[in-house]
Amino acid sequence: MKAAVLGFGNVAAATIESFMANQELIRAKTRRPIKFVRVATRTPARAEGKVPAGCVVSNDCWGLVDDPQVDVVLELTGDVPLGRQLVLRALSNRKHVITANKALLAKHGEEIMSMAEEVGRNVLFEGAVAVSIPIIKTLRESAAANRISSITGILNGTSNYVLSQMSEHGADFAGAVAEAQRRGYAEADPTLDVSGEDAAHKLILLASLSFGVPIDFSAVQFKGIQDIDRLDIGFAKRLGYQIKLIAQASMGPEGLDVSVQPTLVPIASMLAKVSDSMNGIALKGDLLGPAFLYGSGAGGRQTSSAVLADLIELANREDAGGAGGAYNMGFGHGHRRAQGVAYTRDRVGAFYIRLRLDDKAGVLAKVSTVLAQANVSVNALLQDGGQHEQTDLIIITHDITSSQLNNMLPALYEAAGPGHSVVIHPVLGIH
Amino acid sequence: MKAAVLGFGNVAAATIESFMANQELIRAKTRRPIKFVRVATRTPARAEGKVPAGCVVSNDCWGLVDDPQVDVVLELTGDVPLGRQLVLRALSNRKHVITANKALLAKHGEEIMSMAEEVGRNVLFEGAVAVSIPIIKTLRESAAANRISSITGILNGTSNYVLSQMSEHGADFAGAVAEAQRRGYAEADPTLDVSGEDAAHKLILLASLSFGVPIDFSAVQFKGIQDIDRLDIGFAKRLGYQIKLIAQASMGPEGLDVSVQPTLVPIASMLAKVSDSMNGIALKGDLLGPAFLYGSGAGGRQTSSAVLADLIELANREDAGGAGGAYNMGFGHGHRRAQGVAYTRDRVGAFYIRLRLDDKAGVLAKVSTVLAQANVSVNALLQDGGQHEQTDLIIITHDITSSQLNNMLPALYEAAGPGHSVVIHPVLGIH
Repeated sequence: MKAAVLGFGNVAAATIESFMANQELIRAKTRRPIKFVRVATRTPARAEGKVPAGCVVSNDCWGLVDDPQVDVVLELTGDVPLGRQLVLRALSNRKHVITANKALLAKHGEEIMSMAEEVGRNVLFEGAVAVSIPIIKTLRESAAANRISSITGILNGTSNYVLSQMSEHGADFAGAVAEAQRRGYAEADPTLDVSGEDAAHKLILLASLSFGVPIDFSAVQFKGIQDIDRLDIGFAKRLGYQIKLIAQASMGPEGLDVSVQPTLVPIASMLAKVSDSMNGIALKGDLLGPAFLYGSGAGGRQTSSAVLADLIELANREDAGGAGGAYNMGFGHGHRRAQGVAYTRDRVGAFYIRLRLDDKAGVLAKVSTVLAQANVSVNALLQDGGQHEQTDLIIITHDITSSQLNNMLPALYEAAGPGHSVVIHPVLGIH
Repeated sequence: MKAAVLGFGNVAAATIESFMANQELIRAKTRRPIKFVRVATRTPARAEGKVPAGCVVSNDCWGLVDDPQVDVVLELTGDVPLGRQLVLRALSNRKHVITANKALLAKHGEEIMSMAEEVGRNVLFEGAVAVSIPIIKTLRESAAANRISSITGILNGTSNYVLSQMSEHGADFAGAVAEAQRRGYAEADPTLDVSGEDAAHKLILLASLSFGVPIDFSAVQFKGIQDIDRLDIGFAKRLGYQIKLIAQASMGPEGLDVSVQPTLVPIASMLAKVSDSMNGIALKGDLLGPAFLYGSGAGGRQTSSAVLADLIELANREDAGGAGGAYNMGFGHGHRRAQGVAYTRDRVGAFYIRLRLDDKAGVLAKVSTVLAQANVSVNALLQDGGQHEQTDLIIITHDITSSQLNNMLPALYEAAGPGHSVVIHPVLGIH
């Protein structure tokens, strides 16, 4: 099977390096031998001496996707508009595609999967989400017989590293981001990671696989960690929680709930143990019950493991001409489209609420009355002295609906008084 | 694709029940529709009203494996000698086989896989190990490009439940086993589970997939939890560890090390968080780094998830006549055989040593001298008053070799004195 690589960045270079290092092992596991025949990159000089013998390096990406000898194209450019054009062209030339480009699939996945279905080719993307965790294959194949009720994950290693630094070493947000940049975990512009957008891209893929529906990027509410205060990390800890950037999708009677937001997770849960730049994903199926998967979320070498697994899978399908094994998005294309989906933002769960109040008599009574009137019962309460005659009042509610919360907010703001802040985060139960 | 089921115990009944419950979902995910056409069980009356329309129930297991209409046989008898004969017969009739029978595969796996290779059929067994964890597929496919260095797991839910009861509720071994039996986690005769043998069966499958070698059951050292003393669970906890029944396989320069034994795991590790009857598996690959997977290890419904995933996979292989996708044991058969394997029992690691000594002056000096002479340095030391003029001295060593430990033992026994006990367990680092 002849493979060609678009791009020669970190992931592409590592993929070819890993392939060469473990060539014998890979050969022992594949029916058809795999051969890398072409690389296209803007800077061919960088690939010099780093590709197998007989692999041609050029800057001709269009020639690559049009090359009749190529069976599978590895799209590892990281570029969305160019990636889209090249992937569609490769598919129209009836080539299989492997990609690690989550932004591309989140934005143009439906177009790409439709084309793949039309031409009977595979688009595999294990390297697009939580690279050392086989979550795509797990959802597409291993959990195939299950009705998935929820998927809850830490999908962005950069944000998790930043939050871990803040939680474990008392760093502030800016300091933790700088440290992440120094270690190569964060880009010069960290916005895509810390804003929750990258996790939202990944969540779309997982939710689409889990629930068999196309998902609009615009349907995902995402909120990042830029405004997380060390203070709240500290209060959460005192109450038995870690604050994590949680991507979650769940299907309930009201419809699909998809969001990325800073969330309190119980310290005893597996998700709370996911620290530094690692990823972790909890899922629940009606047959398998709760499960949890943990591993690296990024890194060239780690991503190469996922990309090469996809490549080995294609090489092991005897019907190289056909669409092969499982459907790209788990469900048959007709079955996906037919279902449709309603979105809901009304979630039942607990919330963390921090109110900064004037430290004077009667204020607790005022807040308690607001809670009582909204029929919100309290699971945990913490009041912290604070400074300048202000005090922080932290409430963890029992399970309430989001509308209960929203209806109560104006009265809470009023109780807090002008200029006083209210911080709210959802709270997870133990998965 | 026409499926037939051998047996109608817990797992078989749950598999058909789950299939019927999620039929539409499964249909949406499979290219070829799946139909259950036959069940063979010693007690056909038990299956009455519990199979789909058109599925014939009888006690004729040989007629089932010889039935020309059957494409895939689900061997869910749990019986080893009969299971072996039926599986070999089904394969010789060129049928695919799905099984959840780990004892069968641990003992006769090589014979079965050779036959499968010969006739070009698949033997799939995701339901044989840690049912809610897709570990077979992960090792066979997702981690295929990796050199696996180690796999470390809690693979027996019954033992883990018993140890959790002892650790969390202070139960003694007999009481915890009785409670496990009451809850249906343990058989009337719990020996297979608590002796480590069941975990050893599963470990053979994981090690064989990881390292591409056939493994003799006799090569696996297994030691159960029958002799675990609550006292050691308590001391381990005070030193920051949980005692778990750990199945581990690692490949080093000296060869393959495979064992099942009670082991101290650091409280901060993911494995320590695996409590009650759950399973957890940590693996390390040269590309993917460390990963960890968690889920149920048993249960009819949970096992049905794995068995149905295997069934869906077969139905999605367009080449229903061929051996299909990945090799049954990950590696091409020739490649497995060619490799061979050396076994080693010389491991480098830390050890927990508890000595019960006469509580008198000079005894610590005596033990310290033994350690120093063996060049064993101490990571943690705890002395506990105890009763009857005896004291427990607990030592956690730094990394040493097993031979260093073994060479030191006679002198340690001597230091402990006649009739005094020495308890030794290996200690894991954080994975």
